[in-house]
Amino acid sequence: MSFEPPLSGVEQDETSDLRPKFNADGLIAAIAQDIDTHEVLMLAWMNEAALRATLETGRATYWSRSRGALWIKGETSGHTQDVVEIRIDCDQDAVVMKVRQTGGACHTGRTSCFYRTIDPQTQRLSQV
Amino acid sequence: MSFEPPLSGVEQDETSDLRPKFNADGLIAAIAQDIDTHEVLMLAWMNEAALRATLETGRATYWSRSRGALWIKGETSGHTQDVVEIRIDCDQDAVVMKVRQTGGACHTGRTSCFYRTIDPQTQRLSQV
Repeated sequence: MSFEPPLSGVEQDETSDLRPKFNADGLIAAIAQDIDTHEVLMLAWMNEAALRATLETGRATYWSRSRGALWIKGETSGHTQDVVEIRIDCDQDAVVMKVRQTGGACHTGRTSCFYRTIDPQTQRLSQV
Repeated sequence: MSFEPPLSGVEQDETSDLRPKFNADGLIAAIAQDIDTHEVLMLAWMNEAALRATLETGRATYWSRSRGALWIKGETSGHTQDVVEIRIDCDQDAVVMKVRQTGGACHTGRTSCFYRTIDPQTQRLSQV
């Protein structure tokens, strides 16, 4: 069963219906944030099935654009994300999940994918 | 002057060069996070010019997909975002900006665009 279609403008901003606004590829953006440290851990993508699976199982489930398949976070690595709270934005094309992260969220093994700062002057990256 | 092109795999993960990986529309995702409250405020998009402007001016500048124009956050509303720190993710297709937000980040006037939680059981939204 599909979600109801998005509304327009202020109706979409104020509705109490979940009406995700998937992009041309059928995806919304999904941000995972550590519920304890508040660190932004990663940004990935969800199609309708991934969003449904996340809501039904309480485990963050994404759509892997590279593999073209559902991606239950941690299924291979063990680095799961238990979803404590999920929020959606004004136009419903992005969600933020507050998660309890097991292990590193990043495929490199690091806690967060955002492990490099950009120096605005030199435009060089430094690991934090 | 353009950025250097992205590298592959682990080279992209570990480089100290800023090599943003723009998508087919020439965009990367940009998350704004309040530096004091750690709240995720919004998700928007940057093209190369927006990323350069953000780095050069220290003010969050996005690409408005709806208007097809650079969007200096707060230029109209006064609700500016001063960028204190900017980080990029492993494959360099997303940034997180820690910002000092003036006024509400959301076009609805709210602090954050993520003002509704999704109830996983009922799939109804509640304002927080």
